Amino acid sequence: MITNTFENIRMDELILLALKEDIGPGDITTAHLVSPKTPGRAIAVAKEEIILAGTAPFVRVFQLLSSQVAFLFLEEEGAIIEKGAVIAELQGPLDVLLSGERTALNFLQHLSGIATLTAQFVERVKPYGVVLLDTRKTTPGLRVLEKEAVRCGGGTSHRMGLFDAILIKNNHIDACGGITAAVNKAKAARSPHIKIEVEVRSIKELIEALEAGPDMVMLDNMSVADIRTAVEISGGSIPLEVSGNVNLDAVEEIAQTGVNYISVGEITHSARAVDISMSITCT
Amino acid sequence: MITNTFENIRMDELILLALKEDIGPGDITTAHLVSPKTPGRAIAVAKEEIILAGTAPFVRVFQLLSSQVAFLFLEEEGAIIEKGAVIAELQGPLDVLLSGERTALNFLQHLSGIATLTAQFVERVKPYGVVLLDTRKTTPGLRVLEKEAVRCGGGTSHRMGLFDAILIKNNHIDACGGITAAVNKAKAARSPHIKIEVEVRSIKELIEALEAGPDMVMLDNMSVADIRTAVEISGGSIPLEVSGNVNLDAVEEIAQTGVNYISVGEITHSARAVDISMSITCT
Amino acid sequence: MITNTFENIRMDELILLALKEDIGPGDITTAHLVSPKTPGRAIAVAKEEIILAGTAPFVRVFQLLSSQVAFLFLEEEGAIIEKGAVIAELQGPLDVLLSGERTALNFLQHLSGIATLTAQFVERVKPYGVVLLDTRKTTPGLRVLEKEAVRCGGGTSHRMGLFDAILIKNNHIDACGGITAAVNKAKAARSPHIKIEVEVRSIKELIEALEAGPDMVMLDNMSVADIRTAVEISGGSIPLEVSGNVNLDAVEEIAQTGVNYISVGEITHSARAVDISMSITCT
Amino acid sequence: MITNTFENIRMDELILLALKEDIGPGDITTAHLVSPKTPGRAIAVAKEEIILAGTAPFVRVFQLLSSQVAFLFLEEEGAIIEKGAVIAELQGPLDVLLSGERTALNFLQHLSGIATLTAQFVERVKPYGVVLLDTRKTTPGLRVLEKEAVRCGGGTSHRMGLFDAILIKNNHIDACGGITAAVNKAKAARSPHIKIEVEVRSIKELIEALEAGPDMVMLDNMSVADIRTAVEISGGSIPLEVSGNVNLDAVEEIAQTGVNYISVGEITHSARAVDISMSITCT
Amino acid sequence: MITNTFENIRMDELILLALKEDIGPGDITTAHLVSPKTPGRAIAVAKEEIILAGTAPFVRVFQLLSSQVAFLFLEEEGAIIEKGAVIAELQGPLDVLLSGERTALNFLQHLSGIATLTAQFVERVKPYGVVLLDTRKTTPGLRVLEKEAVRCGGGTSHRMGLFDAILIKNNHIDACGGITAAVNKAKAARSPHIKIEVEVRSIKELIEALEAGPDMVMLDNMSVADIRTAVEISGGSIPLEVSGNVNLDAVEEIAQTGVNYISVGEITHSARAVDISMSITCT
Amino acid sequence: MITNTFENIRMDELILLALKEDIGPGDITTAHLVSPKTPGRAIAVAKEEIILAGTAPFVRVFQLLSSQVAFLFLEEEGAIIEKGAVIAELQGPLDVLLSGERTALNFLQHLSGIATLTAQFVERVKPYGVVLLDTRKTTPGLRVLEKEAVRCGGGTSHRMGLFDAILIKNNHIDACGGITAAVNKAKAARSPHIKIEVEVRSIKELIEALEAGPDMVMLDNMSVADIRTAVEISGGSIPLEVSGNVNLDAVEEIAQTGVNYISVGEITHSARAVDISMSITCT
Repeated sequence: MITNTFENIRMDELILLALKEDIGPGDITTAHLVSPKTPGRAIAVAKEEIILAGTAPFVRVFQLLSSQVAFLFLEEEGAIIEKGAVIAELQGPLDVLLSGERTALNFLQHLSGIATLTAQFVERVKPYGVVLLDTRKTTPGLRVLEKEAVRCGGGTSHRMGLFDAILIKNNHIDACGGITAAVNKAKAARSPHIKIEVEVRSIKELIEALEAGPDMVMLDNMSVADIRTAVEISGGSIPLEVSGNVNLDAVEEIAQTGVNYISVGEITHSARAVDISMSITCT
Repeated sequence: MITNTFENIRMDELILLALKEDIGPGDITTAHLVSPKTPGRAIAVAKEEIILAGTAPFVRVFQLLSSQVAFLFLEEEGAIIEKGAVIAELQGPLDVLLSGERTALNFLQHLSGIATLTAQFVERVKPYGVVLLDTRKTTPGLRVLEKEAVRCGGGTSHRMGLFDAILIKNNHIDACGGITAAVNKAKAARSPHIKIEVEVRSIKELIEALEAGPDMVMLDNMSVADIRTAVEISGGSIPLEVSGNVNLDAVEEIAQTGVNYISVGEITHSARAVDISMSITCT
Repeated sequence: MITNTFENIRMDELILLALKEDIGPGDITTAHLVSPKTPGRAIAVAKEEIILAGTAPFVRVFQLLSSQVAFLFLEEEGAIIEKGAVIAELQGPLDVLLSGERTALNFLQHLSGIATLTAQFVERVKPYGVVLLDTRKTTPGLRVLEKEAVRCGGGTSHRMGLFDAILIKNNHIDACGGITAAVNKAKAARSPHIKIEVEVRSIKELIEALEAGPDMVMLDNMSVADIRTAVEISGGSIPLEVSGNVNLDAVEEIAQTGVNYISVGEITHSARAVDISMSITCT
Repeated sequence: MITNTFENIRMDELILLALKEDIGPGDITTAHLVSPKTPGRAIAVAKEEIILAGTAPFVRVFQLLSSQVAFLFLEEEGAIIEKGAVIAELQGPLDVLLSGERTALNFLQHLSGIATLTAQFVERVKPYGVVLLDTRKTTPGLRVLEKEAVRCGGGTSHRMGLFDAILIKNNHIDACGGITAAVNKAKAARSPHIKIEVEVRSIKELIEALEAGPDMVMLDNMSVADIRTAVEISGGSIPLEVSGNVNLDAVEEIAQTGVNYISVGEITHSARAVDISMSITCT
Repeated sequence: MITNTFENIRMDELILLALKEDIGPGDITTAHLVSPKTPGRAIAVAKEEIILAGTAPFVRVFQLLSSQVAFLFLEEEGAIIEKGAVIAELQGPLDVLLSGERTALNFLQHLSGIATLTAQFVERVKPYGVVLLDTRKTTPGLRVLEKEAVRCGGGTSHRMGLFDAILIKNNHIDACGGITAAVNKAKAARSPHIKIEVEVRSIKELIEALEAGPDMVMLDNMSVADIRTAVEISGGSIPLEVSGNVNLDAVEEIAQTGVNYISVGEITHSARAVDISMSITCT
Repeated sequence: MITNTFENIRMDELILLALKEDIGPGDITTAHLVSPKTPGRAIAVAKEEIILAGTAPFVRVFQLLSSQVAFLFLEEEGAIIEKGAVIAELQGPLDVLLSGERTALNFLQHLSGIATLTAQFVERVKPYGVVLLDTRKTTPGLRVLEKEAVRCGGGTSHRMGLFDAILIKNNHIDACGGITAAVNKAKAARSPHIKIEVEVRSIKELIEALEAGPDMVMLDNMSVADIRTAVEISGGSIPLEVSGNVNLDAVEEIAQTGVNYISVGEITHSARAVDISMSITCT
């Protein structure tokens, strides 16, 4: 039986888009070759060590195809899966397993790829007490799923979108005539529940920002030396976030500067899909 | 003015999903800091050499946000863009440019990443007359866009989904009791307009497949030596496709075997986003 | 309980359109006259001999109205139903049976009409080994259902739409400057999984088409004599399809020419609804 | 430019369903053979005499495909079109004309078929002052369009659906324990704006119905003799409607009895598509 | 388990709109503080005497959030609930109860507010045999729910919308050149199942309207004296409706005039939300 | 011409719901009585002094009905409109003006009602430097529109929904085992961009809350005396919000206590619709 919870309803728009683009008017191979009620079984196996993410859409794909698919086994979101280990074991009509396999794996491999890459970044920054944040550089339509995958890898969510925090970038600053003016304008208009972060690109801008008094400051594309200076100047008076083309090689040195947050676009926009295979058999 | 062509309507479901997840009930930064009718201008610039793809959704994001955005300049889909070159120049309300920037770039960077990686594969196989194909390993919801990006990079489209060709995999073969039985069953039932491809994993299976007489054969995860043997055995009597974890290092050697097609999942499921920046100013 | 399989989800868009246009804000007759939990029973009976089609949407209409409707008996899709025989027996809330009756029957009568007419065509061509094909001349929104009804009547599906095969018609030929040019252009661009059919209107065009080498040829609106000549000329080298205002009187003579396929628009665009009645009672 | 009026928005759900089922991920023939900006021209011609209906969805199909299609000429809804006469002349991108042709014609031929058949019924009953009504036996999803086509043929709309009038059928009567009880129950509960019609199957039931005092009576499947008696008994005190498998041969005799209305399911559920062809050329 | 009946499907569009605007990408308070499977219990209590309405959307909100919520107790629609009495008792996951509380109560308090105010109007007019009608002055998107709430309070539904009755207002009369012309035009064109009501603003217009012969007359914004005259003149020959800013103070005097119907916009557009609280606990 | 900006797209789901429930298959009065291209003009006039809100959906209703409606004059959102003053002047097809009038006014009267009532609250608290906040007690489906109306009346937006701030209520506190535990748990898990507010019901709870260190405290249903004590105790160290059945009579005394924010549910859930009329004429 399919459970139509609101969580599912929210995912369904994207999952149905994916099923429609793959199955369209029908899986003609399976329709021609497999009798409708043939019982089947499937096992998803990790072909490399991964951090698991995306089990919710993986399950939902099969639920939307049929009410007859049972999950005999399913690893937890965020679990470390060894190479060769079983991630999920399913039972249901063979034709349903065959028709859903690719779409379900596309979700699982993409999202586990994000979790796995995130964990590598987190491993490098955690010893320094730094929190790894994601960004809004996500695949269109998959933001909530990708941010959940980041959380599986040990990362923390930056703002969800343009609606739940104020982040004043240089374009906004230019339009307002300066950092001080922009921060003041934001403070005057905002709901009391909304935080204000301001982006700075130099120590000079940082100093102006600290005076203006936002809730948080983003150091954009600064050198490690400048980041160190920024940490000294702010002296813990306000949370500092480093942002801008941070990669695995550079992230540890940045973490050592004493900033509070580092945000990384690569974990969502450039993670490679991990290798997961699915074997499906008649039973 | 927004042109609601059917092409656009088809993309809109995904683009609106993306805009809703990013803007939600409103871009509060821009709403608080930028006056609604302030005129603006934006330039998108390639920060590395790329093959351009994704201009259609890039444009459509801004069209859906406002009827006041004009494109003063826009490079062609599939063009080679040098590092530092301008991809697009836009003019419109500053708040619209700011609110749409991230979603528009998320499309452009992801899809150009696919085109750029595809082109690298194509470059290696083209001298041998081999056609590079994509797969169904695409990001959920983005298949048509990603397959168009593959085409921009010089690749060719494999079947669109489960509906437009019969591809008999080993699971189908098992369910039917053998390659011959499966191919015959498919031949009997299909529409006359549908082609049949059969996947084989050994030379023995290839020989059985050739007798069964499909329209095309896929050599799945075979060694280069076996692929060479397969080419000899078939002797040009039927198109051969190589598939299975093909990467940039291995692809040229495979191409030299004389197969007709090589399909690569990596170009869609693991291409990194290319670096494109957008600068937005008041005018 | 309602089973929301993907098959159902695909039909639901149309069925909900139908339920909304019929029930709108409410079935006021039934709401005023029948108590909500009154148990009821319904029997659908064929008032003439038919080939049954449309049972899936027939069932789904009632499932979408209520989770309380049970099907005690339901004939198989494609079955021959004698005049007076029972097609289905339902049990459920009386008000649900009354509110759903008309919409459910509208599907069943329309689709069984198509299956029944198709069977008459098939009966005439089958002795000659000819396959009867449907066309794209279907009722807007009902294509998949109508093509399934054709299959129930013994027909075979032509391409599903414009996306799963290339059919070069004279308009395309004109735009390309000739049959040879058109076929070559199609061959160069197509995915390897897509077949090419070309439409010809004379023996001269057929000869040019045979040289160009498509996968199939359509003889459009040709005389029986010309069709015979075409069969001779092609000599079995390529599948031939006859198309163009073929009716029940003419179809057998065409079948005798030795063509492989005959496609008929009338079976989907002009089949009359068969007579099926439903009697509903309190229990 | 596309005009998104509410009328269009209402049709669009069905038209987009039709376009998606036909074009799906793309018209590959046209995409491969016709350059995107080639100008084209199309003429729709009646191949037999018809009453025209369905011009609104015919136009809308092309509008949804492109904002570049112009209608140089378009006959009026409800017009009598002679065999060979031009119905519409269009100008626009050749690829758009080719991709939209079939879907647009499917609407036009189906709906003009309904209008043309309706006109034949109307011609037979009009001399006797009888109004020809349609029924709820319409193609699922097309009710509003089909009822409009009936109007084009000179017919009048029965209730739109279950929501805008009370029609007490024998099932309702059984559930209430008799005609009198049912009519009284309906009268008690209804909004003052809703009319009550009651279906009777015999003169005895008619007499009971007349006493109960509905707004209208439907004579269901009665013999012509009984209909004549019914007209005498009611004596013009209440409008009478004849219903039940009325065909072209029988309708005139029924009209002569003096009833006010005759409703006919055949005009919507069994009208054959009329023959309309479209010729499309480069310009 | 969620029951997807058509009634629910019709409500869901609005309820999902409400859930999406409240929960958006997630209830972050509950997600951070309440473990997913903590069992919970909730009781909804009336803080003042009310007429209950809106139980259907109240239940559906929780059903859409989870299949695990059970209703241990639920009062009937239309029941009089004493101050302090329990309306509903629910059991289910604590996080679901917390996330759904506000949206569910927003429906219940708004709709019970309408039912409660309606009952006060009905109490004043019922002794005089007058039927209290609602209007089309409803909250956008909530018409069917609000009209059902009116019925719970003892009111009767006016036409549902612009589609199920003809109501000729002065603007229509002007466009037609007078009451007589307008009524005649409407009579000529309408379906036999549609009633015609005409709005008059003076005794003079009433007299003209009575001659024209509609099915019902609306006395718009007339003085009580004029209404009395209107009742005398019409002498029961036709149903009369009084309309126009009728409030609780004035309604009884109007009812005493002998009109048949009084319609009141205030009951739907200006009813205050009644006070209902919900207490939620872990179990 | 209709401008499909993202702002409009977001409103359209609700507005189309409203248009469909009112117009359904057609405005039969207008269709029967007004010729399609008759030019018309309409003036919306305030029948009492109001603060204007809802002009965006008011305009959009007519835009969705037709591309031919022009606004000759339209007052600004948030403007004070004197009794008798013109709010808007429209020109367009008479039938469109007539069909859209009610739905457009339903938005305008409801939302202006909210703005007008909000302004009365703001007037009482502003002299004391208190900010008036709205709540989540909004009409289902109308939250963004109603919060915009609150802003027009001088109020400020509380959190938009459950997703953009953490508000720890007593139910959450119970589930976590105390205020301190709940606040700490929230702090540990949240994104750095999210604020935490905690609800307290006594001075004792307030003291515990202040130690726990949220970003804001809500004093729920406290007496004015307790609120005063709360202000003293907190001494400006943290923003304080008063909440709980605050009405126009009580609000000023609460404002005098020195709290920072007062949130009022009544302004959205119980504002009466203001009186606005529309006169429509042929031109």
